[in-house]
Amino acid sequence: MTALTARPGAGSAPGLAGDGGRPRRGYASGKADYLSRLAKIEGQVRGLRKMVEADTYCPDVVVQVASVTRALQEVAVGLLTDHLHHCVVDAVHASEADGQASLGEVASTIRQVIRL
Amino acid sequence: MTALTARPGAGSAPGLAGDGGRPRRGYASGKADYLSRLAKIEGQVRGLRKMVEADTYCPDVVVQVASVTRALQEVAVGLLTDHLHHCVVDAVHASEADGQASLGEVASTIRQVIRL
Amino acid sequence: MTALTARPGAGSAPGLAGDGGRPRRGYASGKADYLSRLAKIEGQVRGLRKMVEADTYCPDVVVQVASVTRALQEVAVGLLTDHLHHCVVDAVHASEADGQASLGEVASTIRQVIRL
Amino acid sequence: MTALTARPGAGSAPGLAGDGGRPRRGYASGKADYLSRLAKIEGQVRGLRKMVEADTYCPDVVVQVASVTRALQEVAVGLLTDHLHHCVVDAVHASEADGQASLGEVASTIRQVIRL
Repeated sequence: MTALTARPGAGSAPGLAGDGGRPRRGYASGKADYLSRLAKIEGQVRGLRKMVEADTYCPDVVVQVASVTRALQEVAVGLLTDHLHHCVVDAVHASEADGQASLGEVASTIRQVIRL
Repeated sequence: MTALTARPGAGSAPGLAGDGGRPRRGYASGKADYLSRLAKIEGQVRGLRKMVEADTYCPDVVVQVASVTRALQEVAVGLLTDHLHHCVVDAVHASEADGQASLGEVASTIRQVIRL
Repeated sequence: MTALTARPGAGSAPGLAGDGGRPRRGYASGKADYLSRLAKIEGQVRGLRKMVEADTYCPDVVVQVASVTRALQEVAVGLLTDHLHHCVVDAVHASEADGQASLGEVASTIRQVIRL
Repeated sequence: MTALTARPGAGSAPGLAGDGGRPRRGYASGKADYLSRLAKIEGQVRGLRKMVEADTYCPDVVVQVASVTRALQEVAVGLLTDHLHHCVVDAVHASEADGQASLGEVASTIRQVIRL
């Protein structure tokens, strides 16, 4: 994981305040939803352990792993989408440099999700 | 998850006994390793929850989600590989029909992992 | 493929003029590069046909297919990145509604590339 | 692409003759189908070039690239499936060593398709 400091536009405090002072943290509005989805995924991974512990037939475990993987990627794309709609918009409005840096970071994150 | 009954070659009890009576469950030899990897992944998912709870910068969470996804896919491919080397070989030796059914199941599982 | 009309911010002509009148079409600056990469990919697909025609060993063809797939995904992410840095920035500057529509479209495109 | 020599079970000529002398080349029976699919994919890549040439809106090109990518992965999984049902079965029957080598090769190919 990268360091939490020195992000693009950190000087203009993206994620903390946008216009009108409303919070801009990308997932702020849906935070409870993400927490609930991640709690469910954690339970699914625990279920995978129990499947292996119980010598479940391999292909069944693999299909279940694929299902958990997909749930995680849904979370990733959800977070990225929220990020685009909040932090990135703020950064673009802050300055040309902040905007380009923020978008460059998004592009790099997409590459990691797609695994290029 | 699919039902655990009526698998290819169920009649010849794949996964329970191969030649010489040694267990054939695909991940038998590496079971402890899979359990340990899944326990680590479960901890990583718990870490994702803490990141969201702490309002961690979105792209950092997404990059970490991508890392957990990759760890899960490594588990999936590991399980599939073990399955090929044990259950599938047994099924191929059992009969032409068992072998083809087992390989068809593998192909279908691969499609789900690749998401086609 | 979706229709080419009625895109987000079409009213403000994204891709045709930005500040200072310079073209904003995302891949404008790198168009020759994309054309050259796609020509190479087209040649690689032709090579795949020749491999199948010549009864090349399956795993070798599959590995080569994976290589072409990766090259195509590099093109997709490149185009998406250019799009973010040009059209999306313009749309965000044009209006809140244009910006959100453009970012929603990007999110939807990412989902299709990731295949969710 | 890996070399075409020294494959697993090369000594027992997989892909050239199975029981009863029928050809075992994995895609032999569906060769015309693969050639036709690859010809179509080649045409789609040519279409991508024309889209870029015509300054088509980026997200539309990206969505089309994703569609071509998926068609290629269908070819990859089809080839892999055929390979499992023919060459791998032959190798497993030939000897324990040939079978394990052939399955190891399949596992390695799956990793490249999944990109691990």
